[in-house]
Amino acid sequence: MMKDIQVAIVGYGNVGKGVELALRQTPDMRLNSIFTRRPSDVRTEAGINTRVFSAEGLARVSTVTTDIDVAILCGGSAKDLPVQGPIFAGHFNTVDSFDTHNNIPDYFAAMDEVARKNGHVSIVSAGWDPGIFSLMRMLFDAILPGANLYTFWGPGVSQGHSDAVRKIDGVQDARQYTIPIDSALEQVRKGETPEFTARQMHKRVVYVVPEPEADKERIRQEIVSMPNYFEPYDTEVIFITAEEMEDNHSSYPHGGFVLASRKTGEGNNVVLEHSCRLESNPQFTGSILVACARAAHKMRQKGKRGAFTMLDIFRYLIPHSDEELRRSFT
Amino acid sequence: MMKDIQVAIVGYGNVGKGVELALRQTPDMRLNSIFTRRPSDVRTEAGINTRVFSAEGLARVSTVTTDIDVAILCGGSAKDLPVQGPIFAGHFNTVDSFDTHNNIPDYFAAMDEVARKNGHVSIVSAGWDPGIFSLMRMLFDAILPGANLYTFWGPGVSQGHSDAVRKIDGVQDARQYTIPIDSALEQVRKGETPEFTARQMHKRVVYVVPEPEADKERIRQEIVSMPNYFEPYDTEVIFITAEEMEDNHSSYPHGGFVLASRKTGEGNNVVLEHSCRLESNPQFTGSILVACARAAHKMRQKGKRGAFTMLDIFRYLIPHSDEELRRSFT
Repeated sequence: MMKDIQVAIVGYGNVGKGVELALRQTPDMRLNSIFTRRPSDVRTEAGINTRVFSAEGLARVSTVTTDIDVAILCGGSAKDLPVQGPIFAGHFNTVDSFDTHNNIPDYFAAMDEVARKNGHVSIVSAGWDPGIFSLMRMLFDAILPGANLYTFWGPGVSQGHSDAVRKIDGVQDARQYTIPIDSALEQVRKGETPEFTARQMHKRVVYVVPEPEADKERIRQEIVSMPNYFEPYDTEVIFITAEEMEDNHSSYPHGGFVLASRKTGEGNNVVLEHSCRLESNPQFTGSILVACARAAHKMRQKGKRGAFTMLDIFRYLIPHSDEELRRSFT
Repeated sequence: MMKDIQVAIVGYGNVGKGVELALRQTPDMRLNSIFTRRPSDVRTEAGINTRVFSAEGLARVSTVTTDIDVAILCGGSAKDLPVQGPIFAGHFNTVDSFDTHNNIPDYFAAMDEVARKNGHVSIVSAGWDPGIFSLMRMLFDAILPGANLYTFWGPGVSQGHSDAVRKIDGVQDARQYTIPIDSALEQVRKGETPEFTARQMHKRVVYVVPEPEADKERIRQEIVSMPNYFEPYDTEVIFITAEEMEDNHSSYPHGGFVLASRKTGEGNNVVLEHSCRLESNPQFTGSILVACARAAHKMRQKGKRGAFTMLDIFRYLIPHSDEELRRSFT
C-alpha cells in the first residue's frame, strides 16, 4: 500500500481553506501542516496532524518538516508569491497559482532556478486560468492551428476589481461581478470569428455599500471612469446596505469559457468549447492545486527537477496506472 | 530551419481525405504519400509529391519510403486496423483512430509489441472520442476525483448505425442521426447528478430511402426493435427519396459533450464541460490525427518507443517551444 502524499498549506485564506476541503475528498493525499501568519485563525478538523508555523519562521522549516512531500502556496500573486515562492521552493516541492499573466515568464525563471538548485519540482500558475484554461488553449491550437481563440470570464466575483473599488473614498464595502456578454458568446458558438473590443465581451456590475453621507454619484463616476479596471467596459453600479451585502454576496461564484473556432477543409466550421461553472471559486482552485500537488510529487519521484506549468504535467495529475487510464478513460 | 514532418495517409476514404485537408492547413507538416487499394480514386493537389501504393503491396514499402516520418492509418476499427495497424507499425511511426472502446487494451498491446520491436512510436485511438473526450474525462477526474462523468454525442451522423440500417431488406440508403436529449444535458449543467438510462440521454432519428414497393412499416419495425443499436432508444424513422438524401444528408456533421459534476467543500457545485460542434466530422478527426502525427514524430525523436494513447502525449501535440507555450498559452 502506497503512503499518502503529505501536503502543507501555506497561507490560510479562502484558497488555503479550499485546498483543505479538497484534500478531504482526495483519498491518496493528506494534510500534514498549515503555515500561516495567524495561527489563531486555524480551525482544522480534529484528528488531522496539523502543525502551525509562522510564515516568517522559515529558518526552522527544514529541520522539522522533512515529512512534507509538497507545499501548496495559497498566497496572492502581487505580494506573497514573489517572496514566498522562492523561499519555499528551496525547502519543498511546491505548487502555486501565480496568475499575473505578463509576469509568468520571470516568476517561472526564478522558481526554476531555486527548484533545480535544491532538487525540487515547482508547479507554477496552476488553477483554472491560468491552468486548465491554458491547457485548453494549447490543446485547441494544437488540433486547429491558427484557430481563433476566445476566453470569456464569469459570471463571477473578481477579487482584484472588488479591491480596487474598496479603495475609493466613501466606499465601505464592494463586490464586483464580471459578466460575459451572451450575444458575443453565441456569435462565437455559431462559428463566426469576430474581433471583439473589451466592451463587447464583458460587462461589470459593482455592488457598493457606501459610507453614511457619502456622495453616491461621485463614487459611481470614480468607478466607471477608472482606467483599465472599468473605463473600457459598460459598468453598472448598484448601492446596497451592509446587510444586503452579507446576505447576497458572501460566496465566491465564478466561471468561464474558452472557445476555439476555425474552418476545416473547404469551409466547415469547428467550434470547440470548454466551460466551468463554480459555486465556489476558491474551493475549485483548491481542487486543482491538490491535483497539481500530486503531480509535483510524482514528477520528483520520476527524477524531474525545476519549474513546470500545467502545460507540462498533464499526465501526472491523476493517480491511475497506464492500464487503468486506457481501460477507464479512453 | 527544421524539415517538415513527412506524412503518409493509409486509406483514402472520408477520414483520409480529412487528413489531407488538415495537412494543407498545417505549416510544419507535409503530405508525402497516399496508400490506397484504389489508386485511381486519388485526386490530390498538384505539386504535392504523392506516391500511390496498393495497401497489399506492403512487402515493397520499407525499401522505397524511408523518407516517411509518420503513417496515419485511416481505416475502420472493425476490419482494417486490426490487420493494417501491426503491419504499418513494423515500418513506420503510426497514428490511428481505433475506436472500439472494449478492444482498446488488446489493440494497444498488439501495437505496443510491434512498435517496440521495430523502434517506432504508435499512437492509437486518437480522434475526438476516444481521444479529446478521453483527455477531458481524465482531466476532469484528476481535478474532481469521483466526479460524475457524462458523455453525450451528437447531434450528428453515426456511421455504424447508418450501416446497420442499410443491411435491412428493402432499404436502399439510410442515414442515422444521434441526438442528445436537451433536458438531460440541462439537468447535468445545473449540477444535478442523475443516473440516466440510455433512452434518457439520446434519441435516434433515421432517414431511410426505401426500395420501390418495400413494406415501410416492416422496415420501421425492424429498425426500432434492433437490439443494442435502436431498441434501447426512442427512434424516429423518416422515409425520404434518394434525391432528398442527396440534397440534405450528404455532409457528416457531429459533435458531443463531456460533463463532470461534483460538489466541493460543504456542497458547492462545480460543473465542467467540454463540447465540440463539427460541420464535418471526418475533417475534424483528420485535424486531430495530424496533430497526433506530429506528436508521434517528436516522441520518437526524444527516444520514446511503443504504443501510446492521447492520454500520454498531450505535451507533444503542439509545435511550440516551452517558452512560447508559457508566453502564449498560460
